[in-house]
Amino acid sequence: MRVFQHVSDIGNLQQALAEAMEIKHDRYKYQSLGKNKTAMLIFFNNSLRTRLSTQKAAMNLGMNVIVLDVNQGAWKLETERGVIMESDKSEHLLEAIPVMGCYCDLIGVRSFARFENRQDDYEEKIMNQFIKYSGRPVFFMESATVHPLQAFADLITIEEYKDRTHVEPNPLFGGEAIERTPNKRPKVVLSWAPHPKALPQAVPNSFAEWMIAAQEGLEDGLDFVITHPKGYELDPKFVAGAQVEYDQMKAFEGADFIYAKNWSCPGVTRPADYGKVLGDYHNYSEWTVGTRQMAVTNNAFFMHCLPVRRNMIVTDDVIEAPTSIVIPEAANREISATVVLKRMLQAL
Amino acid sequence: MRVFQHVSDIGNLQQALAEAMEIKHDRYKYQSLGKNKTAMLIFFNNSLRTRLSTQKAAMNLGMNVIVLDVNQGAWKLETERGVIMESDKSEHLLEAIPVMGCYCDLIGVRSFARFENRQDDYEEKIMNQFIKYSGRPVFFMESATVHPLQAFADLITIEEYKDRTHVEPNPLFGGEAIERTPNKRPKVVLSWAPHPKALPQAVPNSFAEWMIAAQEGLEDGLDFVITHPKGYELDPKFVAGAQVEYDQMKAFEGADFIYAKNWSCPGVTRPADYGKVLGDYHNYSEWTVGTRQMAVTNNAFFMHCLPVRRNMIVTDDVIEAPTSIVIPEAANREISATVVLKRMLQAL
Amino acid sequence: MRVFQHVSDIGNLQQALAEAMEIKHDRYKYQSLGKNKTAMLIFFNNSLRTRLSTQKAAMNLGMNVIVLDVNQGAWKLETERGVIMESDKSEHLLEAIPVMGCYCDLIGVRSFARFENRQDDYEEKIMNQFIKYSGRPVFFMESATVHPLQAFADLITIEEYKDRTHVEPNPLFGGEAIERTPNKRPKVVLSWAPHPKALPQAVPNSFAEWMIAAQEGLEDGLDFVITHPKGYELDPKFVAGAQVEYDQMKAFEGADFIYAKNWSCPGVTRPADYGKVLGDYHNYSEWTVGTRQMAVTNNAFFMHCLPVRRNMIVTDDVIEAPTSIVIPEAANREISATVVLKRMLQAL
Repeated sequence: MRVFQHVSDIGNLQQALAEAMEIKHDRYKYQSLGKNKTAMLIFFNNSLRTRLSTQKAAMNLGMNVIVLDVNQGAWKLETERGVIMESDKSEHLLEAIPVMGCYCDLIGVRSFARFENRQDDYEEKIMNQFIKYSGRPVFFMESATVHPLQAFADLITIEEYKDRTHVEPNPLFGGEAIERTPNKRPKVVLSWAPHPKALPQAVPNSFAEWMIAAQEGLEDGLDFVITHPKGYELDPKFVAGAQVEYDQMKAFEGADFIYAKNWSCPGVTRPADYGKVLGDYHNYSEWTVGTRQMAVTNNAFFMHCLPVRRNMIVTDDVIEAPTSIVIPEAANREISATVVLKRMLQAL
Repeated sequence: MRVFQHVSDIGNLQQALAEAMEIKHDRYKYQSLGKNKTAMLIFFNNSLRTRLSTQKAAMNLGMNVIVLDVNQGAWKLETERGVIMESDKSEHLLEAIPVMGCYCDLIGVRSFARFENRQDDYEEKIMNQFIKYSGRPVFFMESATVHPLQAFADLITIEEYKDRTHVEPNPLFGGEAIERTPNKRPKVVLSWAPHPKALPQAVPNSFAEWMIAAQEGLEDGLDFVITHPKGYELDPKFVAGAQVEYDQMKAFEGADFIYAKNWSCPGVTRPADYGKVLGDYHNYSEWTVGTRQMAVTNNAFFMHCLPVRRNMIVTDDVIEAPTSIVIPEAANREISATVVLKRMLQAL
Repeated sequence: MRVFQHVSDIGNLQQALAEAMEIKHDRYKYQSLGKNKTAMLIFFNNSLRTRLSTQKAAMNLGMNVIVLDVNQGAWKLETERGVIMESDKSEHLLEAIPVMGCYCDLIGVRSFARFENRQDDYEEKIMNQFIKYSGRPVFFMESATVHPLQAFADLITIEEYKDRTHVEPNPLFGGEAIERTPNKRPKVVLSWAPHPKALPQAVPNSFAEWMIAAQEGLEDGLDFVITHPKGYELDPKFVAGAQVEYDQMKAFEGADFIYAKNWSCPGVTRPADYGKVLGDYHNYSEWTVGTRQMAVTNNAFFMHCLPVRRNMIVTDDVIEAPTSIVIPEAANREISATVVLKRMLQAL
């Protein structure tokens, strides 16, 4: 694997899940694989979960890790040829990126959407420069349009919980255990939810991409439905083949997993709206996932990539219920990252 | 050991010192203990000695280390339930802290007193959130009220020096060797000293707590005296049982160890003064530890946790004397941290 | 080796190159040497290549690495005795530096010229404090006046390329392979080139120092020529014995290696000009290294320490030519650092 960006990069999903479970059973099993190999993690944006889990994953594999924080604003690389470089850009990407590749074996990069220009974001300009010029395998640690380490962790989490019939309460919150009847082919719903700020589409794009692939790529498959207000249609590049249901309550009916997430306007129908919050978010408060919606599901598990704004995306009751699996979902970030780095090491 | 906060957490002091000496003799002895274990060090405040020595300690034990710097000002976690999170707080502590626990085995946290509210500081609100929600053993790397890794290092240093009869000069400063007659039960004096800024009470609180425990907890014991101007009384929670002598010269008589430190008003007698410098610090210049005071001691060793302002806390002459042991004291930070992490690993 | 600052610190150059080639062949060969040894890398200034390559080198040797970023502006240490420390300087160097030495085995420091005072810069005040007070071997990761890890990497690169007769194009840029006739005693030219900002002399100082030593210190030797406009004379401390040719075209005739670099006025002839850009840099555009100058060389290899401003220091054509070796030169930073740390470990 030279690039980890899309679900297709991981190949057979059933096989990927088998490897994830193997790692979860013994996360140090491939420790000799990373001996004398170095992972360079380059962050153009802040990171908590991704930084910690990927660093942990690399160490699980016995790798050395170098973390590099680069202020996105200060990363002023010249990208054109022929320019007399006398401005504030002190280096050309044609030198900067190959040099980074010199001192490591694998490169992970985080670089968010800038919302300045839809095309730049959706063409993954920065990530593609690393792919093209670094000379090293590159894995995406959330880019302008995708967050595959998250989506893979989400898939692992669904696989772990889909057959559960008995769900214990979270000791932090108490409550009673829940009994549920699983569906062999679970129904997974991605639901937009309101948020005061403009957020990127990376998480919903990747989640959709992975769930669509899982519909037929997993042995028992799953049914995937997306629900959001009009105007928030995701890019067809990621959601072609997905069922979209604009009525949130209808979408939730009989669901086994609810994946809540806000995203700003992807600009598919109106490019001028790209990266915007459409209208006053207070007018969308009925989209906040609460007990009203959860009541029509099949005792669905609640998921979110975190950080999450309570009582905006989801109510306290729902995120504290025994069926809330946001913490095990976050913990699986270590597992997905370990599998991906393992694959990349094996392909060196 | 699930929490390292108070002297009582370390148990028998004589045993703890024996382990410290064992580590000092071979600091890599327990290297296999930390294999595939990860220490997460979270800094809400700046750190030099604690960061370096704790990182070194974890590596001595063969652990992986993840260091996380969190801007205290930027750490805006919602702590209440029921709030619609539409302000600048983008995450709830009920999600943030359990997630950090997912990617590590032990958590160290540094979080200073904020001086906004005595009760918040003295209740250790932030540290207790980590203890309650992280799901991992937590060690204090200086909190609002305690700095136990420092106090343990101080105790180790006293143990190492208390029997010394011959003291060589520091080659950096020169001078002549000193002969001294040790006391079997050494006299240890904690002396307040002036400082231009308001400093927390964490260091004197812990030093007092540990010395009081050592009075009877060590085989030969020690005698502990605190001296400070009126108004700087430390919280009884930490100093109950300690002898307080307001006359500094009297306190120093026959002392074997002088531990100088500034602290701001603990607000015990007048809560409104909490965290304040009482009066003009220039009026307290006679409290600066100099040769005048050291002359009445038993050739006492001089200690300070560092950083220290010279000629404010202590004169050049005293800190450069052969009996100044501030550097070996700092070096023992590695030893105390190694013992504490070793204990926590053994208890996993 | 207790200090790595000057070419003389590395001893016999032929032997140093032999060790470099040994490391290049197997960069993990001395991995057991660094077991339980800690390298502390202290950065007062930004760093990309030095940070990454030195960290990698320490890990190649099995060392633990602690990286410490210190804001040069915030590093306010008192350096005088007798001062009452009540200002913004909260620590004295006589405490701060020995403490850093407590937690490591080797110390690397980066601290650029401040251009406030030629004497302070050229006396290496900060670096000498670390040498004098840290109690540990100290290696320079670019100081006010030298950058020996770069110069050693440059020497290794010259050694690797001097005998090449066939040069393949860089796949990123294409073009045709070049055949060249090497000189047994290659001609190496250090050429000043224009730049909009005032840059330190550390790189040209060290490059000159190493090349002058190599003239007779290598078996086959080399011929070294420096070219720059009048007023940019380097300090005799570094260039005594070097041939200076003010006519750039004449200097380039028959050259095998062109090492381009800007530096600000070293202030040798006019101390008042120290650290200044002399005149308008636009008037020096004919010094930009382009095909015109390269045409008179012996198909010379092009070198630069990076980062480089294209079409200011060097044209696109020259830096993208098959004979441009700036990336392999940067990659050799890992090799030079590994040899230096290995030497220091062996001498502990």
